[in-house]
Amino acid sequence: MAKVKKSPRPKAETPKGFRDYFGHEVHERKTMLDAIAAVYHHYGFEALESSAVETVEALGKFLPDVDRPNEGVFAWQEYEEDGNGDWMALRYDLTAPLARVYAQHRNDLPTPYRRFAMGPVWRNEKPGPGRFRQFYQCDADTVGAPSVAADAEICAMLADVLEKVGIARGDYIVRVNNRKVLNGVLEVMGLSDDAQRDDVLRTIDKFDKVGESGVRELLTTGRKDASGAFIDGVGLAAEQADPVIAFLTSKGATTAETLANLAQAVGESAIGAEGVKELQQIADLLDAQGYGPDQVDIDPSVVRGLGYYTGPVFEAELTFDIQDEKGRTRQFGSVAGGGRYDDLVKRFTGQAVPATGVSIGVDRLLAALRMKGRAASAGPGPVVVTVMDRDRMADYQAMVSELRAEGIRAEVYLGNPKNFGNQLKYADKRQSPVAVIQGGDEAERGVVQIKDLVLGAKIAESATHEEWKAQPAQREIARADLVAEVRKILEGNAG
Amino acid sequence: MAKVKKSPRPKAETPKGFRDYFGHEVHERKTMLDAIAAVYHHYGFEALESSAVETVEALGKFLPDVDRPNEGVFAWQEYEEDGNGDWMALRYDLTAPLARVYAQHRNDLPTPYRRFAMGPVWRNEKPGPGRFRQFYQCDADTVGAPSVAADAEICAMLADVLEKVGIARGDYIVRVNNRKVLNGVLEVMGLSDDAQRDDVLRTIDKFDKVGESGVRELLTTGRKDASGAFIDGVGLAAEQADPVIAFLTSKGATTAETLANLAQAVGESAIGAEGVKELQQIADLLDAQGYGPDQVDIDPSVVRGLGYYTGPVFEAELTFDIQDEKGRTRQFGSVAGGGRYDDLVKRFTGQAVPATGVSIGVDRLLAALRMKGRAASAGPGPVVVTVMDRDRMADYQAMVSELRAEGIRAEVYLGNPKNFGNQLKYADKRQSPVAVIQGGDEAERGVVQIKDLVLGAKIAESATHEEWKAQPAQREIARADLVAEVRKILEGNAG
Repeated sequence: MAKVKKSPRPKAETPKGFRDYFGHEVHERKTMLDAIAAVYHHYGFEALESSAVETVEALGKFLPDVDRPNEGVFAWQEYEEDGNGDWMALRYDLTAPLARVYAQHRNDLPTPYRRFAMGPVWRNEKPGPGRFRQFYQCDADTVGAPSVAADAEICAMLADVLEKVGIARGDYIVRVNNRKVLNGVLEVMGLSDDAQRDDVLRTIDKFDKVGESGVRELLTTGRKDASGAFIDGVGLAAEQADPVIAFLTSKGATTAETLANLAQAVGESAIGAEGVKELQQIADLLDAQGYGPDQVDIDPSVVRGLGYYTGPVFEAELTFDIQDEKGRTRQFGSVAGGGRYDDLVKRFTGQAVPATGVSIGVDRLLAALRMKGRAASAGPGPVVVTVMDRDRMADYQAMVSELRAEGIRAEVYLGNPKNFGNQLKYADKRQSPVAVIQGGDEAERGVVQIKDLVLGAKIAESATHEEWKAQPAQREIARADLVAEVRKILEGNAG
Repeated sequence: MAKVKKSPRPKAETPKGFRDYFGHEVHERKTMLDAIAAVYHHYGFEALESSAVETVEALGKFLPDVDRPNEGVFAWQEYEEDGNGDWMALRYDLTAPLARVYAQHRNDLPTPYRRFAMGPVWRNEKPGPGRFRQFYQCDADTVGAPSVAADAEICAMLADVLEKVGIARGDYIVRVNNRKVLNGVLEVMGLSDDAQRDDVLRTIDKFDKVGESGVRELLTTGRKDASGAFIDGVGLAAEQADPVIAFLTSKGATTAETLANLAQAVGESAIGAEGVKELQQIADLLDAQGYGPDQVDIDPSVVRGLGYYTGPVFEAELTFDIQDEKGRTRQFGSVAGGGRYDDLVKRFTGQAVPATGVSIGVDRLLAALRMKGRAASAGPGPVVVTVMDRDRMADYQAMVSELRAEGIRAEVYLGNPKNFGNQLKYADKRQSPVAVIQGGDEAERGVVQIKDLVLGAKIAESATHEEWKAQPAQREIARADLVAEVRKILEGNAG
């Protein structure tokens, strides 16, 4: 017989940019998402789980190219004999699928349609440190509600969500701005040329980084960046740049002051006045519901997303200090953002449908909770019943059954029991609070040994010989007292 | 300017074979999965969420072909300038990723490694009625435990899971068989030829459908199927087929009887005797933990998966009657299956690692719970505060804030408020239990109208005029009593 060539062993690796989540990581994320879902649900939002796969056509933006796979998304062509199979892709966010779902099911869905969604999305981008190609999003949107009351509701809900998951009032702020106000400013500036308007929008987007003077330079004659390279300016005259600067810096000591500044910045512009009025309404609605400006605040310096959204824009920032990778103190920063967009559904139906919503950066918020010590703890590992005598497995299984019946997480060691040290190492790795030990001799006497592994670890670290004798981590108890004695140790650890 | 050709509107459709899950559907599945996860966790299993995307190499089986996309999986090639990008694919189950994860992280994971996983998997198969290309699986596996105590644990846990989610004892049975016993039977038959062994295995797989006489015909001279077509037999002599039939029909009135029959069927075969001994051990362990044969039973007629697994095989069947699509009464049937497989990790590392586990058919089990009235109910819709006066939105928002603060799900109607009928239709569609109504006149008098929509629907259906007057579904209450009065209605509905 011909020798069959052995194929090489496959590599046991996730694809580049993907990762796995283990025990505690799954638990802490799930706990946070469950808490968020409860708030969304409480506000009347309904869960939606759309398919992970969409037609490329429905996703839009990323149209397939025969020679070059779509950038940004993971896409493939369905096999058909004639090569004309449909192109499909993994969703890259939860908003594009919402537009498709609403357009597809609009006759069956209530209007307005409040929905929340949480789940993985995929991006075909170059992975980097902490940047993965599959990650979670967590969105809430209201489709079909033209009133800014819907925007105010999203802001209030976002504040509730943050407090519910463990970010205290004072440690976050939801900032609100409005694209319409910016449109008014652009109108006042008398920019007739679309390209110039786009240039101004792009420049405003850099306000976070370069500040007031930087924006002013970039709007006019240009600017040297940190590396020394010269960035061309948009070419506006100094006084033409004034309304933009006035807009970006119009935040006052009170909401009323901010709104007055904005009214001045938009001058005679009708769309600008409408934008200011909307911000006023949002502020009034939130005030009526008891939210203070320390929770949700009108703040024209929020520029992220102003180019994308069509009305109110919101961003939730965490304001407590952290150390960045270079040891400098800075604020934690943004964990959620959103706003009003009115064109998404139109792509499908031809009719504009007003929509507003928010997307929470799940990994960012979880990182913040960890820093604050508010991420869900893993809880204790299982009680591990060790195996001294392979033939008495039924006895050991009976012990875990009793423990489980009383609500205690427990398991029998199921590896090779020959090396007892390995069993205790296993219990350590599982972060087990208690190990149960019973040899044949103990079985005959109707007793078991229980070892308090938390206390044992403490003693091993620091106890004197006297302390060790006074409070031994391992002791013998009656077999009949197993559940009660284990419970005592667990309650001692929890207290 | 040249006229830009308008691209046609995209279709608002999921790709063929995919679907979306709305509100209640998401809730009932999540509730069931949470209950299952709690049982798994209680048994010491740890959550694992592996990436949805794997390299085709790691998934195995489905190797890429340049001209023909892989059948069975959704796969695509990563873009590289030279066309040699890696092939990636969506996972088609949760077992192949477990093997990859264990091989990749085995130095950090405890051994044995008990893990559970739940999430969507994808199959590139022809969709059909009720057959989707994305669906949930829910698995628990123990890797690195050679002892059949691990198999017994999976069976006990499966029984616990079924009872926990709402399948009563007596409505299910976990049946256990063992591939080693079958190997013993094949040995006794003296089949030297691998091809013939495979033929016999394939024939046994049809036992469910064709029964004892059918299997006997197929093992020997052949058989006419229901359509009249003749199926060739394996060509064994009648007495050569006897051990197989003895094996398949060896279920006795008691476990002891079954095991005695099996011992006879495997004769002198060492591997067969080992298999019988394993079944004995499993039965003893379960007995020691208080599980009866009405919960977990040794049953050699379980053949599903015997070709795939290497040791014990289990299948959970629901035994209550349902009507099939043709109105015939039959048992609900299988909702979970699993067994021992020892070769999966070996593909990666070269070392055989014993593993055993179970996979629950999430959609099947959920369908069963629905039939039994045990699927999670959606709960009431939100209280809907209607909008009579657009300018008093803040008042309405204050009402829902009060209701929410007291734990009551509530929302303001955020559509166009002009047509009040639409607001009540909306409340109906949301399955709202209560609508709150306040016009300007009522606001002045410090009152609101509350409408009991559940009672209203009942009255509309059946009440006489007298009943209607005696118990009106809508009444006026003091604004200050809003929360208390709404709560009364909700508690009345719940009781």
